[in-house]
Amino acid sequence: MINIGIVGATGYTGIELLRLLAQRKDVRLSVVTSRELVGTSVAAYFPNLRGRTDLEFSLPENNQLKQCDVVFFATPHAVAMYSIPPLLDAGVKVIDLSADFRIQDVTLWEQWYNTKHACPELIPHAVYGLPEVNREQIKTAELIAVPGCYPTAIQLGFLPLLESDLVDSRRLIADAKSGVSGAGRKAAEDYLLCEATESMKAYSVTAHRHQPEICQGLDRAAGTQIGLTFIPHLAPMVRGILATLYAPVKNEGNVTQEQLQSIFEDRYSNEPFVEVLPVGEFPATRNVKGSNRCEISVTYRDETDTVVVLSAEDNLVKGASGQAIQNMNVMFGLEETAGLEGIALLP
Amino acid sequence: MINIGIVGATGYTGIELLRLLAQRKDVRLSVVTSRELVGTSVAAYFPNLRGRTDLEFSLPENNQLKQCDVVFFATPHAVAMYSIPPLLDAGVKVIDLSADFRIQDVTLWEQWYNTKHACPELIPHAVYGLPEVNREQIKTAELIAVPGCYPTAIQLGFLPLLESDLVDSRRLIADAKSGVSGAGRKAAEDYLLCEATESMKAYSVTAHRHQPEICQGLDRAAGTQIGLTFIPHLAPMVRGILATLYAPVKNEGNVTQEQLQSIFEDRYSNEPFVEVLPVGEFPATRNVKGSNRCEISVTYRDETDTVVVLSAEDNLVKGASGQAIQNMNVMFGLEETAGLEGIALLP
Amino acid sequence: MINIGIVGATGYTGIELLRLLAQRKDVRLSVVTSRELVGTSVAAYFPNLRGRTDLEFSLPENNQLKQCDVVFFATPHAVAMYSIPPLLDAGVKVIDLSADFRIQDVTLWEQWYNTKHACPELIPHAVYGLPEVNREQIKTAELIAVPGCYPTAIQLGFLPLLESDLVDSRRLIADAKSGVSGAGRKAAEDYLLCEATESMKAYSVTAHRHQPEICQGLDRAAGTQIGLTFIPHLAPMVRGILATLYAPVKNEGNVTQEQLQSIFEDRYSNEPFVEVLPVGEFPATRNVKGSNRCEISVTYRDETDTVVVLSAEDNLVKGASGQAIQNMNVMFGLEETAGLEGIALLP
Amino acid sequence: MINIGIVGATGYTGIELLRLLAQRKDVRLSVVTSRELVGTSVAAYFPNLRGRTDLEFSLPENNQLKQCDVVFFATPHAVAMYSIPPLLDAGVKVIDLSADFRIQDVTLWEQWYNTKHACPELIPHAVYGLPEVNREQIKTAELIAVPGCYPTAIQLGFLPLLESDLVDSRRLIADAKSGVSGAGRKAAEDYLLCEATESMKAYSVTAHRHQPEICQGLDRAAGTQIGLTFIPHLAPMVRGILATLYAPVKNEGNVTQEQLQSIFEDRYSNEPFVEVLPVGEFPATRNVKGSNRCEISVTYRDETDTVVVLSAEDNLVKGASGQAIQNMNVMFGLEETAGLEGIALLP
Repeated sequence: MINIGIVGATGYTGIELLRLLAQRKDVRLSVVTSRELVGTSVAAYFPNLRGRTDLEFSLPENNQLKQCDVVFFATPHAVAMYSIPPLLDAGVKVIDLSADFRIQDVTLWEQWYNTKHACPELIPHAVYGLPEVNREQIKTAELIAVPGCYPTAIQLGFLPLLESDLVDSRRLIADAKSGVSGAGRKAAEDYLLCEATESMKAYSVTAHRHQPEICQGLDRAAGTQIGLTFIPHLAPMVRGILATLYAPVKNEGNVTQEQLQSIFEDRYSNEPFVEVLPVGEFPATRNVKGSNRCEISVTYRDETDTVVVLSAEDNLVKGASGQAIQNMNVMFGLEETAGLEGIALLP
Repeated sequence: MINIGIVGATGYTGIELLRLLAQRKDVRLSVVTSRELVGTSVAAYFPNLRGRTDLEFSLPENNQLKQCDVVFFATPHAVAMYSIPPLLDAGVKVIDLSADFRIQDVTLWEQWYNTKHACPELIPHAVYGLPEVNREQIKTAELIAVPGCYPTAIQLGFLPLLESDLVDSRRLIADAKSGVSGAGRKAAEDYLLCEATESMKAYSVTAHRHQPEICQGLDRAAGTQIGLTFIPHLAPMVRGILATLYAPVKNEGNVTQEQLQSIFEDRYSNEPFVEVLPVGEFPATRNVKGSNRCEISVTYRDETDTVVVLSAEDNLVKGASGQAIQNMNVMFGLEETAGLEGIALLP
Repeated sequence: MINIGIVGATGYTGIELLRLLAQRKDVRLSVVTSRELVGTSVAAYFPNLRGRTDLEFSLPENNQLKQCDVVFFATPHAVAMYSIPPLLDAGVKVIDLSADFRIQDVTLWEQWYNTKHACPELIPHAVYGLPEVNREQIKTAELIAVPGCYPTAIQLGFLPLLESDLVDSRRLIADAKSGVSGAGRKAAEDYLLCEATESMKAYSVTAHRHQPEICQGLDRAAGTQIGLTFIPHLAPMVRGILATLYAPVKNEGNVTQEQLQSIFEDRYSNEPFVEVLPVGEFPATRNVKGSNRCEISVTYRDETDTVVVLSAEDNLVKGASGQAIQNMNVMFGLEETAGLEGIALLP
Repeated sequence: MINIGIVGATGYTGIELLRLLAQRKDVRLSVVTSRELVGTSVAAYFPNLRGRTDLEFSLPENNQLKQCDVVFFATPHAVAMYSIPPLLDAGVKVIDLSADFRIQDVTLWEQWYNTKHACPELIPHAVYGLPEVNREQIKTAELIAVPGCYPTAIQLGFLPLLESDLVDSRRLIADAKSGVSGAGRKAAEDYLLCEATESMKAYSVTAHRHQPEICQGLDRAAGTQIGLTFIPHLAPMVRGILATLYAPVKNEGNVTQEQLQSIFEDRYSNEPFVEVLPVGEFPATRNVKGSNRCEISVTYRDETDTVVVLSAEDNLVKGASGQAIQNMNVMFGLEETAGLEGIALLP
């Protein structure tokens, strides 16, 4: 029985961790913290958990966290980095869903997040928790930096192209559409139903904080510094990210649809949570709603020598809490798919 | 008083024509046809028109059409081309919202629409009704081919870049997101609320029928054959198209944000329905819902030497019926903005 | 030319006043106030007004308000009552969209709003702005209390039944469903898209602040104290209220569908903004979206001797800003429908 | 291992059966039929099942159905009644999600469904599958008539009141709001996203086919013929029913909130899928989305001596497929909650 703590469980990634973990028999939710809600019953705050847990929110300082086997941080950025060192010292494994340990270049991180990092010495020890790339390192990691939602969908889509050196990596484009839950549960005007429904818009058009994280992963896959134009969009829905990726092929005319399809199928043939769709089928976010799957299609547009990859995930599951649990499963030697086999809710 | 006929008024572009025209004092809705609904009151079918019109649907064969000053066709493709010649012969001006006369190359049209064209001899006389390009020709036109919804948003976004020869026109990308009303009012499973809501997907990923129309316009603006990867997406909302356009600059490092902004502002400074947003503001489809405006922003991403243009319109207004009426206003020497000044419904 | 001021124009009733008034030639928007946004351009804040107005938000203390012919208050409750007296003294007509002057019994008002009223002596002079009841008094009023959104839909639905003394007025039920815009534009968690979409719930189940206002109007129509169970619900949409009203008939078996239909049609035959639907047709909020109309149907369920009335309006138009302007038109001797003839946006 | 057949699995109750059953280890999906899709892979048709099942759709005539232990019918009404008799003869248990065996009075059934019943002699043997009422009979049943979605929510809400004889059962009102999935997956104009989103309306205002089924259950609970005004509404969402129920108390002034709360809590204290909420908390359909729970609150409005019950369920789970599986669990002596413990997806 694995004892689990969750710090900052009142947002959407927190509730999703709780939904996925509360159904399991092989782990125990031991501590769920929230400064604002100390003493409140978790089930009163998240009505979908009524009758499923007796837990109450407690203070994050609580020594109970040190008695957990693993602690998830579902906090905003620049919070976890203060609390993680003592937990690691106490031998607790940490899975951080925030951005604090995703970027290996601390100067870059400090620039994008406009904050001094509290424990730069830990960054090299953090493993970037994308199992499709780092499964072996995850097995022995003490500290996991769970990838962001956009970075997961975009990296999984571009990886096969870059690893096979088929495309001009200086001219990558990622046009991503996200549901509103990606903005979290904060009461901000922009995410009111009356502001966000029935509309499409781009945001962070000049620069988005996920850019350096995506580039770090793609640079590594390409073995060189890539060039990426990443434009995120807000779509009028709750869950889901659809990333439409564009890359010009390197040697025009030397690529075929069949070749691309094989490259993608081969790359992910052993991956339980990445599904390469057959030629002629394309992803939709509804097909993965509530599930830990990422669906990918690859299409060659020969009239412009451009590869178009479509990548769909549930931003709260494969893009956050499901992937965090996938990491936990790997770290503790459990079946990687344990507790993540739920089928998408459709319709 | 201009007498107006509408053929095929039971779809969403039809109802939108009726909404916009029924409020005007300077035109009269004389004939509204529908084979299926002959004898039905228009207001019973479109409850938002209760008390606004006494018209009944009549047969399209009806001779009444010949007594109109102008007839709008809001029919599926390959319908209007059979009915238009006798109307033109009778001296009636025709504004065709369908695809029948949009493509000047009849072979290309027949290929994409998989149909023999019924009156290819008329095609050269049809004026492509994008007032921002063809205002002068529209003034004296007898037959207008109203641009498609995607082509309007995409052309308006790319035109300033191509006309100023700033970008590599062989590598254009148009990632467009459309509301479901673009699919019309047909009872097809894909557009059921339970199928289309709370999801994003791409469609027509290998090729979409609006591609040749867009290319025809962009070729002309560029003075050369451009290369375009156009990927349409279905967004979970009723109205609106947001086109995110990507173009690599020709001479890397020789372009600035200020220069781009000026080019766009100059291009559209006299256009009543194209609004170039100030630097730092970006379009959202909700800002143009129900209005005839197209909002455009231009952003230079210097790290990849890529221009990103965002273009938002209401697909049923500037992307169809509003633009059709704008054409009518120009053809009849009316104020171009007459009946099109409605402010977007927000929220 | 009527000079208009709007106090507190940053919420949804404010933006709706601006949308409806900015299109008119016979009135001038002179002052729009907001403490938070002083100096900000109105069009920058409400992007649907770009190019339509040069106004900037100013301070509400500003003396400019006294130079207006009429001032609208689109403020939360317990704000207008402090600012209105000096305006009335200066001869300015006031149309208050808030709750401050809706309840004639000041004790009742203070109880429900938990605040001391600032100018109880003005309450008897305030006219309740439901033109279908008080048109004559509105003509000469100096101070209008615009009815709330629920009260408008519910009173218009019950009035014919109570005035004709057909139902047992002690057992009225109003089950009302409102779009989220009824909650205003405040950044509260409950109204986030992720919280409010794809769900139905009731709220204020034990008591809602609109209860005394509705009862005041229904008591008057019935000539006796009525009994009402009013349950408001939050529907996952932006605009619209649908009220489903239930009333047991007084003399069972003595009422017919035809009789009810006639009573309703007669009651509203001269009302420009109340549409009694033919037997067999029923209201939907989409049919009145953006318009000032209230659609009503009446149905007799003889197996339970119960009358079922359905009443639909746009809560921001007939339920707030449209009705406020309708009052202004009546007060200034303008055509009652001026500026309110916009047809509902459908789809 | 229980072998399962599903007839007519292409609608929303069919896909929901598949979602819930495909995750279980103790049952095997053996046959899934569809006339239109013979030979098509189930996972190709329902993309959320990709990788979860190798089944193909087969013909319903297939003898394979007779080799199942239990067959679910997820067909429109008047279909199952032709196929069920031979299956029962072959010893197969049948769980019918359609309306064919819900009404014990065959004359009444034939009247409401406007069809001659194919096997009236079986009706008395069918057990109405509401476990909260008929658990003992379900254990030994051969043929289950699964309750409709509205009848489940409404009966569960009214039962405690009627069984305790507290209310005037001649004046019951059920104002129910349903998501669009209740209409099934048929391509009808009314359920297009553009028609059904962003709107509320009532339908079947004069009479709805679920009326006799609800009355049959309530009559039995009351021990007398009750009077019910049932008005269903279409809400702009996919899943969920919220029923708002009104009943006047019998002896005015003799009922208290505490008493009502106790009656409800006692009635459902042993029910795994009915949750009576604490005083002051109220149901929302989002809290049960994807789960088999029904949430109920009871409120006493003493100023009108009216009890208001709110009852929320997922129409496709507790209102259809989940309840069908709950019946199967009871029939086969499995844990009643097996496969139904999924937590609601929130947000």
